Amino acid sequence: MVESLKVGIVGAAGYTGLELIRLIYGHPRLKLHWVAAQSNAGKTLGQVAPALQGVAGIGELRLENFTPAMSKDLAAKLDVVFCALPHGASSEAVAALHGAGLIVVDLSADFRLHDLSTYKQWYGEHHAEGLLAKAVYGQPELHRAQLKGAKLIAAPGCYPTSAILPLAPLLAQRLIEPGGIVVDSKSGVSGSGRTPKASTHLPEASEGIRPYSVAGVHRHTPEIEQELSAVAGEPIRVTFTPQLAPFTRGILTCTYGKARAGTTLEACRNAALSLYKSGLVTVLEPGLLPDTLWVRGSARAQLTYALDERTQMVLGFCAIDNLAKGASAQAIQALNVALGWEDGLGLPQIAQFP
Amino acid sequence: MVESLKVGIVGAAGYTGLELIRLIYGHPRLKLHWVAAQSNAGKTLGQVAPALQGVAGIGELRLENFTPAMSKDLAAKLDVVFCALPHGASSEAVAALHGAGLIVVDLSADFRLHDLSTYKQWYGEHHAEGLLAKAVYGQPELHRAQLKGAKLIAAPGCYPTSAILPLAPLLAQRLIEPGGIVVDSKSGVSGSGRTPKASTHLPEASEGIRPYSVAGVHRHTPEIEQELSAVAGEPIRVTFTPQLAPFTRGILTCTYGKARAGTTLEACRNAALSLYKSGLVTVLEPGLLPDTLWVRGSARAQLTYALDERTQMVLGFCAIDNLAKGASAQAIQALNVALGWEDGLGLPQIAQFP
Amino acid sequence: MVESLKVGIVGAAGYTGLELIRLIYGHPRLKLHWVAAQSNAGKTLGQVAPALQGVAGIGELRLENFTPAMSKDLAAKLDVVFCALPHGASSEAVAALHGAGLIVVDLSADFRLHDLSTYKQWYGEHHAEGLLAKAVYGQPELHRAQLKGAKLIAAPGCYPTSAILPLAPLLAQRLIEPGGIVVDSKSGVSGSGRTPKASTHLPEASEGIRPYSVAGVHRHTPEIEQELSAVAGEPIRVTFTPQLAPFTRGILTCTYGKARAGTTLEACRNAALSLYKSGLVTVLEPGLLPDTLWVRGSARAQLTYALDERTQMVLGFCAIDNLAKGASAQAIQALNVALGWEDGLGLPQIAQFP
Amino acid sequence: MVESLKVGIVGAAGYTGLELIRLIYGHPRLKLHWVAAQSNAGKTLGQVAPALQGVAGIGELRLENFTPAMSKDLAAKLDVVFCALPHGASSEAVAALHGAGLIVVDLSADFRLHDLSTYKQWYGEHHAEGLLAKAVYGQPELHRAQLKGAKLIAAPGCYPTSAILPLAPLLAQRLIEPGGIVVDSKSGVSGSGRTPKASTHLPEASEGIRPYSVAGVHRHTPEIEQELSAVAGEPIRVTFTPQLAPFTRGILTCTYGKARAGTTLEACRNAALSLYKSGLVTVLEPGLLPDTLWVRGSARAQLTYALDERTQMVLGFCAIDNLAKGASAQAIQALNVALGWEDGLGLPQIAQFP
Repeated sequence: MVESLKVGIVGAAGYTGLELIRLIYGHPRLKLHWVAAQSNAGKTLGQVAPALQGVAGIGELRLENFTPAMSKDLAAKLDVVFCALPHGASSEAVAALHGAGLIVVDLSADFRLHDLSTYKQWYGEHHAEGLLAKAVYGQPELHRAQLKGAKLIAAPGCYPTSAILPLAPLLAQRLIEPGGIVVDSKSGVSGSGRTPKASTHLPEASEGIRPYSVAGVHRHTPEIEQELSAVAGEPIRVTFTPQLAPFTRGILTCTYGKARAGTTLEACRNAALSLYKSGLVTVLEPGLLPDTLWVRGSARAQLTYALDERTQMVLGFCAIDNLAKGASAQAIQALNVALGWEDGLGLPQIAQFP
Repeated sequence: MVESLKVGIVGAAGYTGLELIRLIYGHPRLKLHWVAAQSNAGKTLGQVAPALQGVAGIGELRLENFTPAMSKDLAAKLDVVFCALPHGASSEAVAALHGAGLIVVDLSADFRLHDLSTYKQWYGEHHAEGLLAKAVYGQPELHRAQLKGAKLIAAPGCYPTSAILPLAPLLAQRLIEPGGIVVDSKSGVSGSGRTPKASTHLPEASEGIRPYSVAGVHRHTPEIEQELSAVAGEPIRVTFTPQLAPFTRGILTCTYGKARAGTTLEACRNAALSLYKSGLVTVLEPGLLPDTLWVRGSARAQLTYALDERTQMVLGFCAIDNLAKGASAQAIQALNVALGWEDGLGLPQIAQFP
Repeated sequence: MVESLKVGIVGAAGYTGLELIRLIYGHPRLKLHWVAAQSNAGKTLGQVAPALQGVAGIGELRLENFTPAMSKDLAAKLDVVFCALPHGASSEAVAALHGAGLIVVDLSADFRLHDLSTYKQWYGEHHAEGLLAKAVYGQPELHRAQLKGAKLIAAPGCYPTSAILPLAPLLAQRLIEPGGIVVDSKSGVSGSGRTPKASTHLPEASEGIRPYSVAGVHRHTPEIEQELSAVAGEPIRVTFTPQLAPFTRGILTCTYGKARAGTTLEACRNAALSLYKSGLVTVLEPGLLPDTLWVRGSARAQLTYALDERTQMVLGFCAIDNLAKGASAQAIQALNVALGWEDGLGLPQIAQFP
Repeated sequence: MVESLKVGIVGAAGYTGLELIRLIYGHPRLKLHWVAAQSNAGKTLGQVAPALQGVAGIGELRLENFTPAMSKDLAAKLDVVFCALPHGASSEAVAALHGAGLIVVDLSADFRLHDLSTYKQWYGEHHAEGLLAKAVYGQPELHRAQLKGAKLIAAPGCYPTSAILPLAPLLAQRLIEPGGIVVDSKSGVSGSGRTPKASTHLPEASEGIRPYSVAGVHRHTPEIEQELSAVAGEPIRVTFTPQLAPFTRGILTCTYGKARAGTTLEACRNAALSLYKSGLVTVLEPGLLPDTLWVRGSARAQLTYALDERTQMVLGFCAIDNLAKGASAQAIQALNVALGWEDGLGLPQIAQFP
């Protein structure tokens, strides 16, 4: 019989935490044993998310109040901890859990940037600088080799995933110019978390679309640039425009880059097909453009390209579910790879459509 | 190693067909081998539903054009066929497949009503009258014993499921009067199928809510009444009001019935708790009322009761996903029971939330 | 040249306040001169609602911090004040403004109930009991005579408007039994106000529908019953179920009442046609059922009836825009009548469709 | 007393036709006298749009079947005709109406492009070539002088309006480079018209966002380029990406252009402020980015700029209501200017918010 690893989640009452619970429940080799939350400690999962009421072994699980001092005890009963805390708050928790010998998958931004000064510039002080070098950026499509056996995984951000996937093949194969790249992204509202605010209040969000944090101030910018620079072999800067669109799950990203001489649409498609072998990145059949609805709830990314012959611009299009391939499903995919399992093991392959 | 049954679907390109594909893909003992569709025959599943592109073993499956004459050949390579055709069109297909020895789960209305004259009154001619007596109404919470070993299962309708679940315990325990029952239901738009029409055109549907087929003309009425009459032991008539609400999946049904003398809220809850043992009907913790969002994508129904002391009215509330517990998931649940497996085997227990 | 009245609004930054601004801007005989808000005092209207930026004479209007002591000064420069404060907070403001000689239209619940003990039971202490007898319930379709010349108008609640309009003609003409009436209402999310909360957070609201405050606890219950009892000439109690539906504006209410002997559908329609002469209540052509989308943004209510011959139940259906006919437009309609103008003067007759 | 012009609409049952009806109803100097439609001829307006039932003088208006031969008779009873037919079908109707002496405002694409060969390349044959030189492109912000006294007005397309407004000031003042301009637009679903199709079927549209007609094939491309080239004084080509977003009304367009040396954000804002004097284009206060919700139902465009210092890219953002400023309201605005009236006469200045 297949043995399963014992899993805990810190930050289980937020959206990425709840999505981890859904996905782990369906995973044949991971079993949820322990959950923690901050303001909701003491409640059951069924109370913080009535969707979980009646689910045997889950709905009655009670949220604890995690403190770093508990890490040793946790290490005695768990194998893996997913940490879904806000950036800044995450690093101390991760350091303690990692120090106690647990495999840690961190969904915050705290271990995604390799360069400490870049981190400080965008996020402020870091509470576990020493671990930056140990953390592996958890995009399995690009970092498969480093992920094998990794003990500390920094799961990528949602916008970066949707931007890196279409652009990486183009830069790797030198199909577009490195300068002047535009990334125009539209995200569902779940990307802004579970705390209600004016911009997520249904009457002020459900029929509108709006940009925010534009012109180089959104914190996902350096993460996109770090990964694209690595694949391009030279520094890449992007103009990144996030937008809040009126639906719950999904990101559609359109990328624009100037075609190099000789670039063909065929070459763009082939670049992606040859780079992505995880089984979770689908290059759509020619003629189809991605739709966030087609990946909702699944661990899959869909992408495709177009070449504007009139302007010699290469367009890349990528759709993901921000909570799945953009967060929790990719975190599990990275763990799967770290443990030597198949990328898609236990993950939903088929979107909930419609 | 566990062996799995070989499954086919007739009507695979519609919403209940596609939902069957998603659910069967995640089922450990069912394996999809064959699919058919009418107008989409010749296309791949990935072409009729791009959400399926890239899903190994599924996206490339090509839709055949089913004719009853193929039934014998199908019986040689399949164990079970789900039939997701429109009512009227279904009975002939089901008769042929059943006659060839296959287990058939029919998602149309053709085999749900036991009484031929009632069928004719609401639907017109029936093309396989002789099978009516053999078909088992596939609501496992009420017909578990008959389902064991069943070869022809009539999966219940979506509205009836949401109405029967809260009312059956009340009528079974004589907690409400048999007359004057009101069923007020609000359905997501996927319930009206995949063919675009004016009432489902986003600009005319996404910000509105409207009743339709009111005052005793909706075809789900006799199905609700058949099941409630059986459980009550006397003829029950209901006033049923379906409404189209601006979201994709889900039905919320509110039922109203006059309390009999002595009826308490506690008694209502207990009636449901004692009747429903499938693990897929959750009676919510007191103080919570169901939300369709909490069952979206899951095989689960959520229900609860309230008692209006001022008017002595017993209110029942039930939320289901119309495509899951209201159609495809309940069809598989019924098959699970027919085959002697657990109700929830392979079915999503956790809603996709948010 | 037509002279216009000078208007002020207390509570201008909330949804009913902003809707008043939109409607007054389009009114030929009302002119907005002064606005106040509580937490937003000091900001311009364009800052609290960027939709107003660039609107000449409106966007730059600065919100003051109203205190009752200002009433005398306000009376020197204004003719009418609309008061859109929360219940409880409203009565003191209204008393001061009324005492200073201003015409006051109150959109809170504070002056809707004639019976003080009923008010106390549902809302708690009242701060201006003496004015209850002076206030006129501002539903012009039912209280036209009393509204003429009124100085203190209590604009009706949104749910009550949608419930009273279909039921009043039936009770007035004794077409349904007085007992066992069910009112099942579905409201858009703007009805819960401008303050974000978990239940209005788009990811937890946009794809779900849920009941709340059921079984006789919602505060709009006594208001519905007061008006229906008056029209029926005997005490009426209703079972009222409010539900939050995933769109911004609109209420659809379905009412159920037992037909008296001899009641016909024709009689129900005629009862409404003969009662409603304001030009703002449309009895739809036979065969059509109302849709909230068809009244969105307009001052209009749409209603119709159905008779379930099988169960002898009379169904009433009414759609309104909760912020317009359910609040701000009806408040202006009542003022129009009080001033001797046509009901619909300056009000949007045509919904924004789609 | 002010006299009003008598107005007719050809194509009154579609979305732009219905929006014209709403707007003309509120206009003090235009009065609707006659309506025509193709497939809906013979029905009343209240039947093709139940939102119009009960609106005095409108709901009972019966749709005629327009043929060019009727033009002379129409000229005897009307002053102005709005033509809201599909491109191709429009030119013949327009020619006949214009020939009969009527002022014609055409909402199709047939008279927007000045260059016949460009028209043929994108749309095919033209049926009234001779009129191309007489038609005035109806964007009053750019063509005020030509519009004065115009008898044939080509109302601009929705996407072009949203793209031209932010880019024209930048090109006019040489603040961005003429090459490499990107236009990334997200439109509500009403932009695709009233005919239901798979891509507008609520279950396949309400939770997704998708690009379409990308990479230089959308027919609005030459219209954008014609206007931008004129203002820039040199040929401009743009990479235009339309996207279908899950709401009913509104377009948000983000434009990207390389800053010329010395360009400041201040200069961009000032360029727009100095160019736009119609009162209907709002340059938002610094710090705010536009939201389609803030212009829904109004004749207003909102725009603003950002400068990405890291990449030297100038970002322009523009929000309009595609049916209002993007179609029907702008058509009336252009007529207002042609007749010597104020731009905003009779048009909604305040969005329906929320």
